[in-house]
Formats: sequence, C-alpha cells, structure tokens
Amino acid sequence: MTQLTSPNSLSPIHHIFGHKSPDTDAICSALVLQTYFTLQKIPSHAYRLGNPNQETTYLFDRFALSLPPYLDPNRPFDTLSQGDIICLTDHNELSQSIDSLNSFNIAYVIDHHKLNLSTPTPAYIRIYPVGCTCTILLEMFIQKSLPIDQTTATLMLCAIISDTLNLTSPTTTHDDIQAVAYLQNSLSIDVNELASAMFTAKSNVTHLSATDILLMDYKEFNFGQPNKPIKWGIAGIETTDPTQIFARKDELSQAANELKTQKNLTHLMIAIVDIYNQTGYAIAYDDNQNNIITTAFNSKSQDGIFVLKNVVSRKKQLIPALENYYQNNLNFWLRQLKLFIQD
Amino acid sequence: MTQLTSPNSLSPIHHIFGHKSPDTDAICSALVLQTYFTLQKIPSHAYRLGNPNQETTYLFDRFALSLPPYLDPNRPFDTLSQGDIICLTDHNELSQSIDSLNSFNIAYVIDHHKLNLSTPTPAYIRIYPVGCTCTILLEMFIQKSLPIDQTTATLMLCAIISDTLNLTSPTTTHDDIQAVAYLQNSLSIDVNELASAMFTAKSNVTHLSATDILLMDYKEFNFGQPNKPIKWGIAGIETTDPTQIFARKDELSQAANELKTQKNLTHLMIAIVDIYNQTGYAIAYDDNQNNIITTAFNSKSQDGIFVLKNVVSRKKQLIPALENYYQNNLNFWLRQLKLFIQD
Repeated sequence: MTQLTSPNSLSPIHHIFGHKSPDTDAICSALVLQTYFTLQKIPSHAYRLGNPNQETTYLFDRFALSLPPYLDPNRPFDTLSQGDIICLTDHNELSQSIDSLNSFNIAYVIDHHKLNLSTPTPAYIRIYPVGCTCTILLEMFIQKSLPIDQTTATLMLCAIISDTLNLTSPTTTHDDIQAVAYLQNSLSIDVNELASAMFTAKSNVTHLSATDILLMDYKEFNFGQPNKPIKWGIAGIETTDPTQIFARKDELSQAANELKTQKNLTHLMIAIVDIYNQTGYAIAYDDNQNNIITTAFNSKSQDGIFVLKNVVSRKKQLIPALENYYQNNLNFWLRQLKLFIQD
Repeated sequence: MTQLTSPNSLSPIHHIFGHKSPDTDAICSALVLQTYFTLQKIPSHAYRLGNPNQETTYLFDRFALSLPPYLDPNRPFDTLSQGDIICLTDHNELSQSIDSLNSFNIAYVIDHHKLNLSTPTPAYIRIYPVGCTCTILLEMFIQKSLPIDQTTATLMLCAIISDTLNLTSPTTTHDDIQAVAYLQNSLSIDVNELASAMFTAKSNVTHLSATDILLMDYKEFNFGQPNKPIKWGIAGIETTDPTQIFARKDELSQAANELKTQKNLTHLMIAIVDIYNQTGYAIAYDDNQNNIITTAFNSKSQDGIFVLKNVVSRKKQLIPALENYYQNNLNFWLRQLKLFIQD
C-alpha cells in the first residue's frame, strides 16, 4: 500500500520533458522521472525542449552528467507520433510545451506551478505548491522505496538549489528544506559553495546576445478572457550582478521589441532578480507596459528601471500581481458599464 | 521525508466538498479529507453540495455515520467569504462545483477525473487515474503515517466499493484492489454482502420522481470549442434492475426534456448501468441525440432503448466516446472546408 499506482511494465514508451527555454529543474526533473520509470521497468525517454542555460551547463559539466536529447518543441512529430504517451515535468501550460500537445496522451504531470490544463481522460497528476519539481519527485521515490543513486540525488539537489535560489526564494517550503537535508546526507557536496558557483555561472552572460539573455528563462502567460487573451512573455534574468544587465538596457529593450513582434505578444516584461539582495527589477521600455507595471507593483521607474522590492518569484509574485491587475481592470470596466446602463 | 507538504496548523479554515449531485465518494472523500486535516491540526469543515442518494443514505444509516452539513452550491456566499480556502474532492470542473468557484482560493484538489481547471496560484493537486478518490486519500494517510480510525476506514471502503461497483468497473485499478484489501483488514465487514446491499439500496427508486432519478447522479460536461461549448448533462442511473427504469421511460424522457430547457443544455443523456450484467443503456428520446449516440457508440436503438454493450463508466467510456465524436465531427467539417476552398 505504499506502492500505489504502479504502471504496467508492458506499457508503451513514456516520453518525458520539462518546459521550453529549460531551466535546471526542467532538465533535471525529466531525467529524474525517467529513472523513476526505469526502476519500475517502464520504458521511457527524457528530452529537453531547448538548450541548457549557463547554470545547467555548468552543473552538467561539474558533475559529468549527460544531457537528455533535444526535442524541437515546434516539430514534435519529428520524434513523436500522435497518441504517444507524454509526461510533463515542471510545467502544465500549453504555451510552455511542445506544439500540438493535445494530439498526445498526457499520462503524467509532475509540477509545482499554477494549473492551466485540460486532459481528455484522467491522468496521474501531482502538483504541489513547493519550490521545485524535484522535491515532489523525491517524495515519489521515497514513497515507493526506490533506490536513489548518486546521479539522481545530484540532479535533484541541483534543481532544488536552483529553483529556490538556495532555499531563499519565497517559493521555498518546509518540504524543499527537508529534501535538501535528505539529499545532502547521501552526497558529499557543500551546498552553499555549489549554490554560489551555480549563481556565478548563471550570471555570466557577457558573451550572450541580448536576445539569448531574454530567452534564457522565458515563459508565456495568458491573462484576460479565454476568447480574448492578453499574451505576456516574461523573460526572467536571475543574476548576482544586476548592474551588468542594466548596462545593456537599450540593447535588451530593442531585442524585447523584436521578440514581442515575432512572438505576437501583447507585452514582454524583462524581469531581473538580484539573487543575493533578493530584489526584483524590470526594464522600463514601453509606455503601455510601464503603466501596467506601475499599477500592478506600485512602483515608478527611475532611469529606465523599475525597482520591484522583494519581488523575486515569477510564479508566486509577478504572475499573481498581473492576474490581479487584469481582474481589477475587468471589474473597473464592469462597474463603468453598470453605471452607464443605470444612467 | 515521508511527511512532505505539512500545511501549517495556524492556517485558516479549509472548506472541503465533493461535487454537486453527490455520490458516496463525493460525500465520503470530503469527510475523510477533513479527518486528514484534523489529524494535522489544520482547521477544516466538510460539506455536501446536495442531498445524499439512496445508496449513501443506506450506508450512513447502516454504519451510524454523520452526514456533513449542506452547502447550497448556488449560494456559496451564504456560508463562505471571498478568498476562503477551498478543497475540492472527487471533482475539478467548474460546472460540477459551487458557483463563483474562482472567487475562492483553491488550495487542494484530490480527484480521479479528467482535468479541466485553472488555478491562479500553485495548489496542492493529486489526481490519479484510479477508481475512487478515497484510494488516493488512503495513500495520503499511509504516506504521513496518520492513524485510520474505524469510521474513516468505513467511509473509504464504502466509497471505493461504490465507485468501482465492487471492483468490477473498468475504472478499477490495482491500487483500488489493494486499498480494499488494506481497509478490509482493519474492519470486520463482508465486502460482497455490503456491495450487494448498497446496490439494492441504490436501485430502489420506486418512490422517487423521474426528475429526482435523473438528478441522483447527474454531471455536466462541455464539448466543442471553449467559445462555442456544447453542453451535455449526463444523468447516470446505476441499478440492479434496469427493467424498473425502462418501465418509466416516457416519464423520464419528459423530465429530461424539462431539465434540458431548465439547465440550458444542448443534450441530456439518460445513461443506465446494469450493475450485475455490466451493460450500459441509454433512453432514446430525442432524434438529434439519438443520431449522436448511434455514431459515438455504434449502436441502434430498439423499442426506445440503446444497448451500450460493456459501457458502464461515464468517465472512462461515455465521455471519451463523446469527446471523440466531436473531435471527428470537427475534423470532418475542416476537411469539407478544405475541399471547398480547393475547388
């Protein structure tokens, strides 16, 4: 009874991937879930939907880990066939996944983001409000008493340290803290040194183009009504040295405008996080967007930069503030309409 | 580390309920989740969104259990306030829940149905493709090593036997079988006798009006595109004696037509399940609907009745067949449109 939901070992291949513009958790969680299946004799393949970022590259080099193969999110049928079994890690929104996701059989979703998905039939879904997908996967390993080898423990530890900014982000939960303690026990890794090295690697973007910096940790979100969505792209830039990013403000703004057109977005927000000082910033480069940021975050830009005090989580802070903004906006117009009708 | 995601005991009240037109699982799962929270010192209230059906009434009488209080799904603000913490069991679709669900803070979803939900922030979600919500709840108790008292074990056992038709429905999984074996161990209950008595109680509908029979196990589903939904109501009637239902065909058809108008449905399907013979039936009372049933289930009606061979699960068989029908229909018209454009 601690072994619930054991899929059949005769089952077809389970294809696993994290989100587009993968971060460390997106890649590590796919590999960890692959191991979880392999240990249960369920055939599976892990993929990544993009190039690893600076941090992930550093980690995979440091620990001599192997990246999963690339799956082009715009051409899923090059690799997969209609109806294939799909397992999503670290995401559940269509806009962050492969094209034609609904043509496949979504059998598993292991994630820690807000929910925005439909499945035609019941699937196996574990989404917890914790700091990292790998914290949930660790629970799944422990629950089934599956052995956790050094590689798997390393992948999980790296992902949790990355996603929670070494357990300092407001997304961090008691479970993430427990998970790190548990994994550290079986590994001889100095977590603070690891975190510091990861963040330095992530912050070293001097050789990247402005577009590459924006796409490093890029996600799309729809606000407003389903039939009239307002599409935001949010380019996250976590760095130990925000001044390095501010210095490229004009270049980043230009690249953002180009991406906005290219991706057919209503807005593209450039959201910077100073990892050590736990402060957020946004680049002010578009009047319409500036007005929204001012209202949603109660902040005024200075020298082309918004200071978003203590705002370091896209999931827990940026998105809810924008959701709230659009909800208030809708309520405002509904009130106006009501007044107009009453007149 | 087997104690992941312990919500804080200082947390606000968690309001718990299963779906409208509650079945045994909808009511039992809410009570079981309440106990799960209570054991962790999390304040919580369980509710039911409707009157218990014949089966549930029988079970609560037999085992001297207490029903949770009624919460009017059309008037949630009589009981709850905007922003209150909500926990859904045995459902996740807006149409099956309280009105204005989005005005509340959905913190937990424990369910075993197809997914069709958005949450503005990350929630705790466990949806597994198993036969019963209580199978998942049992896993949660075991995982946290929480004691399972006789009442809780009885509630879980009744729900699993009910939802899986005593482990015979195609929704039954290895996990449900294991769960029943585990619960039986701690209870001195003859499961086959219990199942038989439950099904007899459920089938005794002589004193119910046709409308009450249709609403006994009624759920709504949207097919088609989000901006142009096709709304089906599906009235499930599980019985050991289908002839008793067939005899009231005309009366049920009339009531179905009235409900269809009242609930603004495109179709209302009267879906009967012969529990012992594991066969489904539908009442043929509307030409448009009859055509769809004929295509979707490859069946022709005779004497006003469709035989739906081996179709006993709404979730696993009826809904996917209708989803498939509308998908094929859409593809057909897209092909016609393409041919038309090519001409």
